[in-house]
Amino acid sequence: MKLEMICTGEEVLSGQIVDTNAAWLGNQLMESGFEMHRRTTVGDRLSDLVDIFNERSLVADIILVNGGLGPTADDLSALAMAKAMGVELVEDKTWRARLVEWAKGRNITLSDSNLKQALLPEGAIMVDNPVGSACGFRVKFNNAWLFFTPGVPHEYKTMVTEQFIPFVKSESAVRSHVEVTKLLCIGIGESDMAEQLETLDWPQGITLGYRSYTPYLELKLIARDVPKAQQTAAMLQAKSALKDCVVAQDKNTLAAEVHHLLSERNATLAVAESLTGGEICSQLVAYPGSSHYLKQGVVSYCNEAKMSLLKVTEKSIVEETEVSMICAAQMALGAANANTLINRTDYAIATTGIAGPQGGTDTMPVGTVVIAVKAGDVIACQEISIASTRNRNYIRDLTVALAFDMLRRAILGLPAFAEYNYIKRTNACTYSREELEALS
Amino acid sequence: MKLEMICTGEEVLSGQIVDTNAAWLGNQLMESGFEMHRRTTVGDRLSDLVDIFNERSLVADIILVNGGLGPTADDLSALAMAKAMGVELVEDKTWRARLVEWAKGRNITLSDSNLKQALLPEGAIMVDNPVGSACGFRVKFNNAWLFFTPGVPHEYKTMVTEQFIPFVKSESAVRSHVEVTKLLCIGIGESDMAEQLETLDWPQGITLGYRSYTPYLELKLIARDVPKAQQTAAMLQAKSALKDCVVAQDKNTLAAEVHHLLSERNATLAVAESLTGGEICSQLVAYPGSSHYLKQGVVSYCNEAKMSLLKVTEKSIVEETEVSMICAAQMALGAANANTLINRTDYAIATTGIAGPQGGTDTMPVGTVVIAVKAGDVIACQEISIASTRNRNYIRDLTVALAFDMLRRAILGLPAFAEYNYIKRTNACTYSREELEALS
Repeated sequence: MKLEMICTGEEVLSGQIVDTNAAWLGNQLMESGFEMHRRTTVGDRLSDLVDIFNERSLVADIILVNGGLGPTADDLSALAMAKAMGVELVEDKTWRARLVEWAKGRNITLSDSNLKQALLPEGAIMVDNPVGSACGFRVKFNNAWLFFTPGVPHEYKTMVTEQFIPFVKSESAVRSHVEVTKLLCIGIGESDMAEQLETLDWPQGITLGYRSYTPYLELKLIARDVPKAQQTAAMLQAKSALKDCVVAQDKNTLAAEVHHLLSERNATLAVAESLTGGEICSQLVAYPGSSHYLKQGVVSYCNEAKMSLLKVTEKSIVEETEVSMICAAQMALGAANANTLINRTDYAIATTGIAGPQGGTDTMPVGTVVIAVKAGDVIACQEISIASTRNRNYIRDLTVALAFDMLRRAILGLPAFAEYNYIKRTNACTYSREELEALS
Repeated sequence: MKLEMICTGEEVLSGQIVDTNAAWLGNQLMESGFEMHRRTTVGDRLSDLVDIFNERSLVADIILVNGGLGPTADDLSALAMAKAMGVELVEDKTWRARLVEWAKGRNITLSDSNLKQALLPEGAIMVDNPVGSACGFRVKFNNAWLFFTPGVPHEYKTMVTEQFIPFVKSESAVRSHVEVTKLLCIGIGESDMAEQLETLDWPQGITLGYRSYTPYLELKLIARDVPKAQQTAAMLQAKSALKDCVVAQDKNTLAAEVHHLLSERNATLAVAESLTGGEICSQLVAYPGSSHYLKQGVVSYCNEAKMSLLKVTEKSIVEETEVSMICAAQMALGAANANTLINRTDYAIATTGIAGPQGGTDTMPVGTVVIAVKAGDVIACQEISIASTRNRNYIRDLTVALAFDMLRRAILGLPAFAEYNYIKRTNACTYSREELEALS
């Protein structure tokens, strides 16, 4: 079966936006056992759209068309399809009714341009959009089914997941049973991972896929008609080869994993962020229910905030600098203790470091990062050196991931300091709460 | 002139990597006054490559081909082009010499797969790659010049900038001068904006483009051969039509604008975040130099943290709840005062609300948000009601943007409360610092 994608929109073609919808679809299809054959990107010109629908419908079996279903004048996908087919646009009564209802719920008056979104090529089959005002539709034309989806990512993704993939499956003669196991990894590059894994033996039907999204590298084990026991064996083989670099399974980020672990345990957390500036809290707060464990966070962006809000001692800063293990340890304990109306939190994370591009010195270059994690009465600290060629955002993103991984390891009772492939740990130590309290 | 791009590689087609090379080229061309007509993405199959070279060379004038010039077995671009043209691959002596030299400099032995990179279709013109081992080349075939570039981003970008764009210019008869002005907007939808703007008269040569990325909508005024004075007039016309919804010019986010305004003024800021959970701080900390104004942030995710760290009074919470204007105002003042080692900050932001999906009540449904901004001795508060059909992340993202906009307006001395198109303000008030202090 020949599967293609047509992406529309001047903003995609001219690079005003990076087409993440396209990559996402490739991934989704792969995980369902299908392969994309070609992707074509065109702008908003009516004639270009008509041409491409004519052309690709002669070759492909199923074409996903993305974009051009909105209310504005440059949204021409339905009109172009109608022209290619030589039919008129007609109003879909069901969708018009939905639009009327949608507008009522938001207290807005429907304009003509809103109502345009109910106009579909004659004979088209409407495809529901449960999360937006642009419905999708599909038509059979020449050799192909063309399946139209809106460009707004969350509407598009909902429609692909709930309707397009099932449609492709139903149209596909050969249906193999595909299951994907994802291992979330940090601290290892794609070529190193490939080199380590590709020398191993894998059961028939298992293929390996890699997806890199800073600071993560995701390993996909795609199993096509492979018995469960062999899938599990393959997963364990990958885990044992990659060791500490594997940090979660079937989770997209470490924030998701940490959220899950803390929620499950009814534990409490406090956060003190200098280098990461609120990003650790923010990634957790994205999950509903995070209020059950996340008690407080302090973004201690100046040294006075570290001292005043977190009780870091002046001595630590003067003698060891604000990017030291003692400072990070005091920050973590200070965060756990910061709220005098509740008990000290079970866990705490603290980050400090030099994100650059300015502020580095010979002894403490840009990319010097210290992370501390308090678990009970023990505070573990490590100093990491990230290559100074990396930019500010990379340094922050990697620090967030490493901090979450330290916390994850503490919660699971694993050794505090992991051995990753490419993360350079320059120092490490552990304090007890009593030791730290004696210093202040 | 018809310009196209052909992207090759399974990893691009199947979404293992997002094709940022493609978006980048579109942008480069637009900024040089050229327009991309089509982009096609294919995998690594030889027959697919031959087909696409045959097909597009009949239509386009210039085609940039990206990828497939490396040393491995799946790098087939040169071979496919030779097959399409019906010629042999021949060794380019100049490039072979460069490879020999390159290997000597790195102390490595040239393998056959390295030497493969000097094989070009007979008659091709070699294109220098000053930063890598894969040379580019160009051939005239059917109607088109096909211009081959490596996939490695920095090699590709160097070749495009130094050789491809100049080549396109030399081939192009008409060269227009293109300038783009971007207006960043919030609180207005794309269809409303289009309706308001498309009834106005625009100078010849101005086209409007929209780019939506939650919670922002960006309006682009693309001026092709338009004198500066008319460009300015068009920009002012758009601003006056869209009023308060325009929040910045030529900036991608309000965080960038607020960062700029605070840095320029040497002012200080503190942040107290409940609903937004660290995201306001995190967006500012992404910019180098934010440490000059951002003094401290508190993520007060439980009521005890609001009281203990921010001095919100128990009375406010008991009588008015934690999602009230008095609570938000006390949070803002508390954040400004939280650090006893420095002066009260000039500005402060506080957010509180119900992000959902749980936690809403009849009187305080999901989407109820209160934002307070302290500027000097005045604390302005507004309560907003965001449609409860919106998800948690949308509510957070919009709240961050609205909070930044309140701060921006305070810094610029604009009225505290803006009138957006679709944001429903349910309550607003202003406190003086003295009033708040008297309450505690």
